[in-house]
Amino acid sequence: MFTLSEVSEHNTHDSCWVILYGKVYDVTGILNSHPGGAQAILRWGGQEATEEFDMIHPPETMKEIEQSYLGTVEPQERSITDSTTEEITEAPLSTLLNLDEIEAAATKVISKKAWGYYFSAADDKISKYLNTQAYRSIMFRPRVFVDCRTCELETNLLGHKVGLPIFVSPTAMARLGHPAGERGIAEGCRPFGGLQIIANNSSLSPEDIVENAPPTQVFGWQLYVQLNRQLSENMLARVNQLDRIKFVVLTLDAPVSGKREDDERINIQANTAASVSTQLFVGTDPSLTRADTLQWLSQHTTKPIVLKGIQTHEDAILASQYAPFVKGIVLSNHGGRSLDTAPPAVHTLLELRRHCPYVFDKVEVWVDGGIRRGTDAVKALCLGAKAVGIGRPALWGLAAGGVEGVERTLQSWFFSKLWSSVAFLTAG
Amino acid sequence: MFTLSEVSEHNTHDSCWVILYGKVYDVTGILNSHPGGAQAILRWGGQEATEEFDMIHPPETMKEIEQSYLGTVEPQERSITDSTTEEITEAPLSTLLNLDEIEAAATKVISKKAWGYYFSAADDKISKYLNTQAYRSIMFRPRVFVDCRTCELETNLLGHKVGLPIFVSPTAMARLGHPAGERGIAEGCRPFGGLQIIANNSSLSPEDIVENAPPTQVFGWQLYVQLNRQLSENMLARVNQLDRIKFVVLTLDAPVSGKREDDERINIQANTAASVSTQLFVGTDPSLTRADTLQWLSQHTTKPIVLKGIQTHEDAILASQYAPFVKGIVLSNHGGRSLDTAPPAVHTLLELRRHCPYVFDKVEVWVDGGIRRGTDAVKALCLGAKAVGIGRPALWGLAAGGVEGVERTLQSWFFSKLWSSVAFLTAG
Amino acid sequence: MFTLSEVSEHNTHDSCWVILYGKVYDVTGILNSHPGGAQAILRWGGQEATEEFDMIHPPETMKEIEQSYLGTVEPQERSITDSTTEEITEAPLSTLLNLDEIEAAATKVISKKAWGYYFSAADDKISKYLNTQAYRSIMFRPRVFVDCRTCELETNLLGHKVGLPIFVSPTAMARLGHPAGERGIAEGCRPFGGLQIIANNSSLSPEDIVENAPPTQVFGWQLYVQLNRQLSENMLARVNQLDRIKFVVLTLDAPVSGKREDDERINIQANTAASVSTQLFVGTDPSLTRADTLQWLSQHTTKPIVLKGIQTHEDAILASQYAPFVKGIVLSNHGGRSLDTAPPAVHTLLELRRHCPYVFDKVEVWVDGGIRRGTDAVKALCLGAKAVGIGRPALWGLAAGGVEGVERTLQSWFFSKLWSSVAFLTAG
Amino acid sequence: MFTLSEVSEHNTHDSCWVILYGKVYDVTGILNSHPGGAQAILRWGGQEATEEFDMIHPPETMKEIEQSYLGTVEPQERSITDSTTEEITEAPLSTLLNLDEIEAAATKVISKKAWGYYFSAADDKISKYLNTQAYRSIMFRPRVFVDCRTCELETNLLGHKVGLPIFVSPTAMARLGHPAGERGIAEGCRPFGGLQIIANNSSLSPEDIVENAPPTQVFGWQLYVQLNRQLSENMLARVNQLDRIKFVVLTLDAPVSGKREDDERINIQANTAASVSTQLFVGTDPSLTRADTLQWLSQHTTKPIVLKGIQTHEDAILASQYAPFVKGIVLSNHGGRSLDTAPPAVHTLLELRRHCPYVFDKVEVWVDGGIRRGTDAVKALCLGAKAVGIGRPALWGLAAGGVEGVERTLQSWFFSKLWSSVAFLTAG
Repeated sequence: MFTLSEVSEHNTHDSCWVILYGKVYDVTGILNSHPGGAQAILRWGGQEATEEFDMIHPPETMKEIEQSYLGTVEPQERSITDSTTEEITEAPLSTLLNLDEIEAAATKVISKKAWGYYFSAADDKISKYLNTQAYRSIMFRPRVFVDCRTCELETNLLGHKVGLPIFVSPTAMARLGHPAGERGIAEGCRPFGGLQIIANNSSLSPEDIVENAPPTQVFGWQLYVQLNRQLSENMLARVNQLDRIKFVVLTLDAPVSGKREDDERINIQANTAASVSTQLFVGTDPSLTRADTLQWLSQHTTKPIVLKGIQTHEDAILASQYAPFVKGIVLSNHGGRSLDTAPPAVHTLLELRRHCPYVFDKVEVWVDGGIRRGTDAVKALCLGAKAVGIGRPALWGLAAGGVEGVERTLQSWFFSKLWSSVAFLTAG
Repeated sequence: MFTLSEVSEHNTHDSCWVILYGKVYDVTGILNSHPGGAQAILRWGGQEATEEFDMIHPPETMKEIEQSYLGTVEPQERSITDSTTEEITEAPLSTLLNLDEIEAAATKVISKKAWGYYFSAADDKISKYLNTQAYRSIMFRPRVFVDCRTCELETNLLGHKVGLPIFVSPTAMARLGHPAGERGIAEGCRPFGGLQIIANNSSLSPEDIVENAPPTQVFGWQLYVQLNRQLSENMLARVNQLDRIKFVVLTLDAPVSGKREDDERINIQANTAASVSTQLFVGTDPSLTRADTLQWLSQHTTKPIVLKGIQTHEDAILASQYAPFVKGIVLSNHGGRSLDTAPPAVHTLLELRRHCPYVFDKVEVWVDGGIRRGTDAVKALCLGAKAVGIGRPALWGLAAGGVEGVERTLQSWFFSKLWSSVAFLTAG
Repeated sequence: MFTLSEVSEHNTHDSCWVILYGKVYDVTGILNSHPGGAQAILRWGGQEATEEFDMIHPPETMKEIEQSYLGTVEPQERSITDSTTEEITEAPLSTLLNLDEIEAAATKVISKKAWGYYFSAADDKISKYLNTQAYRSIMFRPRVFVDCRTCELETNLLGHKVGLPIFVSPTAMARLGHPAGERGIAEGCRPFGGLQIIANNSSLSPEDIVENAPPTQVFGWQLYVQLNRQLSENMLARVNQLDRIKFVVLTLDAPVSGKREDDERINIQANTAASVSTQLFVGTDPSLTRADTLQWLSQHTTKPIVLKGIQTHEDAILASQYAPFVKGIVLSNHGGRSLDTAPPAVHTLLELRRHCPYVFDKVEVWVDGGIRRGTDAVKALCLGAKAVGIGRPALWGLAAGGVEGVERTLQSWFFSKLWSSVAFLTAG
Repeated sequence: MFTLSEVSEHNTHDSCWVILYGKVYDVTGILNSHPGGAQAILRWGGQEATEEFDMIHPPETMKEIEQSYLGTVEPQERSITDSTTEEITEAPLSTLLNLDEIEAAATKVISKKAWGYYFSAADDKISKYLNTQAYRSIMFRPRVFVDCRTCELETNLLGHKVGLPIFVSPTAMARLGHPAGERGIAEGCRPFGGLQIIANNSSLSPEDIVENAPPTQVFGWQLYVQLNRQLSENMLARVNQLDRIKFVVLTLDAPVSGKREDDERINIQANTAASVSTQLFVGTDPSLTRADTLQWLSQHTTKPIVLKGIQTHEDAILASQYAPFVKGIVLSNHGGRSLDTAPPAVHTLLELRRHCPYVFDKVEVWVDGGIRRGTDAVKALCLGAKAVGIGRPALWGLAAGGVEGVERTLQSWFFSKLWSSVAFLTAG
């Protein structure tokens, strides 16, 4: 049993202790091998680090430091400084009528750090806002005398039946916003049959996330290739074992972290070592080239591949040449988080239709970024997308109300559903 | 004679009483056949429901429940919670210079529920605002040396002489805003010779609305085809008997209700069973197809048909093939209330002129949506429309000042009237 | 000598007295022949009407009622309600850097009535603001290595040398804003050699306005043809006698008054019989046609004609066919005051250049409306205009500081003057 | 030793004394030859003028008035009214994430006069803001599978190796914002290998500015040709002696001063003789023509020439005909400070690519104006520019934090650096 005072003396490269879940660990030995860098740990040296650790690391990480256990800390002395995640939203979920309202409700209850990570986008957020605006500027051409009794949302993605043509894009750090984390998102998707892509940097392990999923629930797993390839190969091996995960999504639109100023600003205010974004990108390999990467990947996965982050028709054509190993592409500018003034996915979609319509026959074309209305989704589908992804909305829903918040988010897509059948026939 | 307390116990599926106009009715027997659903009645089970009932149902509905009469309620106990419709506007109508000011004056005096129903439009109201903006972005090409002494507003619609080329579009629930209701609108139109289309969901019966109209006053009647066709056939039979009603308007742009969030939000705040929009759409048939519907309609009406809600030139061509049974079409996106980002009528009008100008020879082409200035109307007429409809403006006028408010609304169109004759010659 | 009480009894059609400059007049006999209508006088029946009369009528009007003189009113009882025109601006003129600041300074010191008349434009003021915005959206193509030592502003208009290519457009009611009136504008133009067009409804007589002008100062006179042609013929005869007036400007862009809501609103608040605009338009002939009007005009004037208000190239071509009787045209939408969404003059200018460039050889083409910067003027000149007119800016300048205010207004055009010589060569 | 009172009596054309650095000078004899005009001195006649003098004149100017020295002034009586330049920013530089924040921080600490001079642009600042907006409206076309490990910023300008393709445009009066002045900018550029163009009106002499520069640091020197050519020839002779200065930049986009109202407004408030801009332009020759000027220049400089202020492809072609004497051109609208609605440089860049791509082979094409993000710079480079200049950002950085502020400014360009390598390949 240690006192806080005793622990606090161990805050250097030579001796670095941290308190996690009421226990004291000597992490001096892993400073140099920490994927987030030594400084990210030293910032918490000699201190309570549970919250910070917990939100960022899957629980399995604890196994890696079990052998560093030193003892417990006197419980009355522990203090958790940021308890915002325990607050709950006051507005009942049923009063939230659209994604703007869900985001606003979530913003009230989450920590600044979570807000900074979720809300931020590159530079001036031009791409982030244009992503949505691009959909709003596309007008429908509604036909009349169309039987609107039934509107079938079910579709087939990469050969798997899903309940709706809307999937959850890979978004890291769900536990920053709500303790249910990515597992809560999975649970929220379940009643809708919604497909979820698990982020490489999810705050829960893929095994945990899919644990309760029925055989019919479909998942993908996102890969950021690590500089240390062995780490990625280990993860791919684990993913190979998970039946629920049907494909691997290779992220291409973020070789380095975007300049996300909201995230950086929060970080500066909190005086931490580095922003969430920066920490997540430590270890990511910015050197990927096409043939080498896909060759390597084919040796380590048993799943088909989806390439995410295609932003030009030239790259769409190149990707389609790797079919059927590559089964799909996601047109995406990473939610505007990577390179500001990168084009909205729906613009890239139009580019593909004009310059290489045959690509749609060789790979499935999905889009994400900026979709906040059922009408946005319908437009993307009318213009040729097989499915549309939502990233931040899933996080905002989770943050606003846990599993029920995710459900409310997906539910809000249905409000315009019957109209979809009308519009499907003619948009574009 | 019942006490409120006695009545209040009957609020279940097994025994449901309501108080209407000081009288108690047992409505248990009609719960299942109620077009608005059982829940819409149960919400008021055991309570005073006069105001809610009154605003939504034509008086004739009382006949259908006459046999359910149980007795009276002690008068001192009655309470009407929402008396806003009795307030009157403080600004004299003559000081209101345009429709924006009339709407603002009306907004001050009507109930939130009425405001929510009148003001709301689908999703982000993009189409609602674009409807008006589209007119503002069309520039005139005014000619000079044109004799502007007389400006003849009289025109001929479907063979009937009317005093102006502006008609009142079908708008439901006029009594939500003012007790004079649709009958007040008819009275306001009278001095101008304005044509009025009576809404399927008008809060007064068509017989009541046309009761005082001289033989020269022209009306249409709007049809939302009901799932229970017998209900629609009964109404068509009644309409056949009304000489003042010269045509039937089949609404096609709202097979299901739009997602009108202002309306929903008010509803949530008031904790009622469903929003006004939702209640109105219960029973509406979303399955209409062209040949079947027109065939059925031809068997039940003696009037010519106008198809409302055409939004593409393809559908305009198809409609014109049913001439002369179909005598006119209304280009409309339902005031932006149905599908957000549906195109403004004036854009569809331009589309018709480019792709199928011959349609104008086969059917009369009317437009509505977003018209708030005399110049807006002139532009639509210059571009080929035979008449332009105003929906919300008639409701706002009525709400702001009853019959005189409607007159003021129509009067405001005249301010630019002489100019019209100049512009008529050359716009477009 | 009358008391106010005695006078106040004479306020009917049968006996109508007014007090003007401390004297009582019986105006019963002229009620029916008053150009502004009987009601405009009856509004002041039995009351002090000096201020209202003074601002609107040239002094010579007093001669017409000399024979109606009854006596004086006890001086201590007189009251002038609105003395705002006596206030002076607090900001020295030299601190006002541009026309926006001059307008703001004027707005502070003038009466609401004057502001309403000067500021107002038709409907939503779309044309008024677009007039300026149209210039701002035209980009220069500046050339370098151009000798900018001298920038000659002098030019020749209709054969007369003027000091700058900027003229004062006809603007009525200058004394509403400042007692110096149109004569003050003339004085302010003098040091710059600026041409002034005297408004038909100027608040001083043309004889007064040109009284002190040297032979080299150039004026035009604007004609609104009156329903009572004799009135116009009388004025033309007087103008024929004035050497300083070199041409007659026939106004074509306002056959009826525009719907100027700011003006109307002020009027409603002040509870007067009619707005300034409405009063000015009483008696104006809205029936003018080309051949008849020009034929009639040629019989009554010895001066060349300029047609103001051309807004299409079709009308520019027609006007040019009357050269050389018609020596010039002014492309104008009446400062946006007449028909909202009429096109900015610079757009019409571009239309002429594209469709009928030969018109520039037959008549001089001037523009006005929205010009507020030297760069705006340079653009119009580069695009083919011979001169540009400013209307409101002259009134704002006068109102802000009398003669010096007009000078400051014209001076502000010079700030960019040397640059003009660069830009002249290449814009367009 | 004089008292302030004694000095204060000498404030006329006949006897004009000023106090500079605690010493009294009789400047009567130089009133008429002062480049800024006699009035600019008389404004300070009989007064303490140190601050005003110091910020505007290089120290060497003191030599020219050494012989006018009269004596000292009693130190306790001296007063410096404006001490704002001594304040320092409270926000640490490391918290400033972009140029907007650096500008905001600088604005807080500099004098109004400095702000007015730095911030101001011509007329309505349309070109100033469009300069930036033009970049933001250009979208990237990012390619994927590109190795982003290294991003080489080094480049070669006019044959000289520089550390980044971003140079400091010539900006006068750096000491208005910070005592380190242009020398501080040079020091801030050093660690980045950034090229700096020294302004003709720099507040330190070129000799002072380059004094500590290593042989590898590259400078240019900007020339405003003076009416008194001897003054320019003297300066060119001095520049010829400075090895660090590799080229002369002839400014062509400001033959006269723009109408910079912010600067003028501050000047009016301070009641000084003339604005900073106006003072700087006294003596500038507005008459330059191509052949004569370049012929003259070739006789007085040993350095290659860069022509700054090209705004049309016609002038770019003409400039390229003087290669290799003219080695480069800078597309520039003088930061929007000269002629409002002049085109953004990036638009001119596109014009060159369309109309005269061969120009890029004959001269180096640089751009400046409005660049505030790494992505802006990348776009200009992708579109064919060899280098991009920043003017105000260097001043704001210096003002916000001296040498470190300049470094922070340049550092902020790096944030997007790796992305550059991706984008380089495909933008445009």
